[in-house]
Amino acid sequence: MNGYTPGKDAYLKRLRRIEGQIRGIAKMVEDDTYCIDVITQVSAATKALQAVALGLLDEHLAHCVTAAAAEGGEVAEQKVAEASAAIARLVRS
Amino acid sequence: MNGYTPGKDAYLKRLRRIEGQIRGIAKMVEDDTYCIDVITQVSAATKALQAVALGLLDEHLAHCVTAAAAEGGEVAEQKVAEASAAIARLVRS
Amino acid sequence: MNGYTPGKDAYLKRLRRIEGQIRGIAKMVEDDTYCIDVITQVSAATKALQAVALGLLDEHLAHCVTAAAAEGGEVAEQKVAEASAAIARLVRS
Amino acid sequence: MNGYTPGKDAYLKRLRRIEGQIRGIAKMVEDDTYCIDVITQVSAATKALQAVALGLLDEHLAHCVTAAAAEGGEVAEQKVAEASAAIARLVRS
Repeated sequence: MNGYTPGKDAYLKRLRRIEGQIRGIAKMVEDDTYCIDVITQVSAATKALQAVALGLLDEHLAHCVTAAAAEGGEVAEQKVAEASAAIARLVRS
Repeated sequence: MNGYTPGKDAYLKRLRRIEGQIRGIAKMVEDDTYCIDVITQVSAATKALQAVALGLLDEHLAHCVTAAAAEGGEVAEQKVAEASAAIARLVRS
Repeated sequence: MNGYTPGKDAYLKRLRRIEGQIRGIAKMVEDDTYCIDVITQVSAATKALQAVALGLLDEHLAHCVTAAAAEGGEVAEQKVAEASAAIARLVRS
Repeated sequence: MNGYTPGKDAYLKRLRRIEGQIRGIAKMVEDDTYCIDVITQVSAATKALQAVALGLLDEHLAHCVTAAAAEGGEVAEQKVAEASAAIARLVRS
């Protein structure tokens, strides 16, 4: 059971939509669509992916990290360090 | 004919790989994989998408924008304004 | 007392260094330095600023959010929502 | 003479304003301002810096790169490669 489990279906739907966006971008490249239009769609898919990551992270903080913090000790510290590393990867990607 | 046309097959291959990454992320969510591991894969797919956009942009500057600049006049200005807007969307996504 | 309080001096030092970087960029513009070199320094200052934000966020999660989570209830929820909103602003900036 | 030279005064004004923002953030840290409020100001300063970089880049494309493209040859190729590298650093910062 993860933080995102209750919203699992919604996440799967969003990921399938993003998969469709990527397939659409490949189709644009195959059809020799104008570069800028392809790049615009890549930016849109990137934003959609980041929104998924931010959603997962919010639920991770609200459930996993909060539960570990309530217990305290080393596990809490590890969960925070792990979440901070994931946030840094997200900010830099 | 676009800037990316000579490298079309390589772009299609990269996009198919990213499509596979997204499908893999959906599979992870379905299997209730630990949140942080899902987020790490989303960051990786985001980076791969941005690299595609940067590649397309580089070829757009090298071919379409350069050709318009060689002609000069209003078309050149329009191409630069359009490229700058695409770069801004990319930086903000 | 905030999460960053024990490391306050180090943060002040980093911020003064970034202030110096910005002043250096203004000097480059005044001296008509080549555009690309100015942009490179702006990218460096942006990265330094983001590193400060990621550091502050890590300490906020480790102290303020963790303390609120240990108490539980509405305060914990609010702290997580507030942290998630700050993370989203950071990812999108 | 650079692409940004005609707008030099406006860039200097924006950079001085960002320098003031950084000084304001240092003051917030000194005064033990709440972490999230500090992070919010760091995000705002980051956005302001990125807007400066995007402005400089637009003018670089419109003047330096366009002029090199009009000449053609190796210089044009070098200018595009250099601009693409700067864009990549910006997207990844």
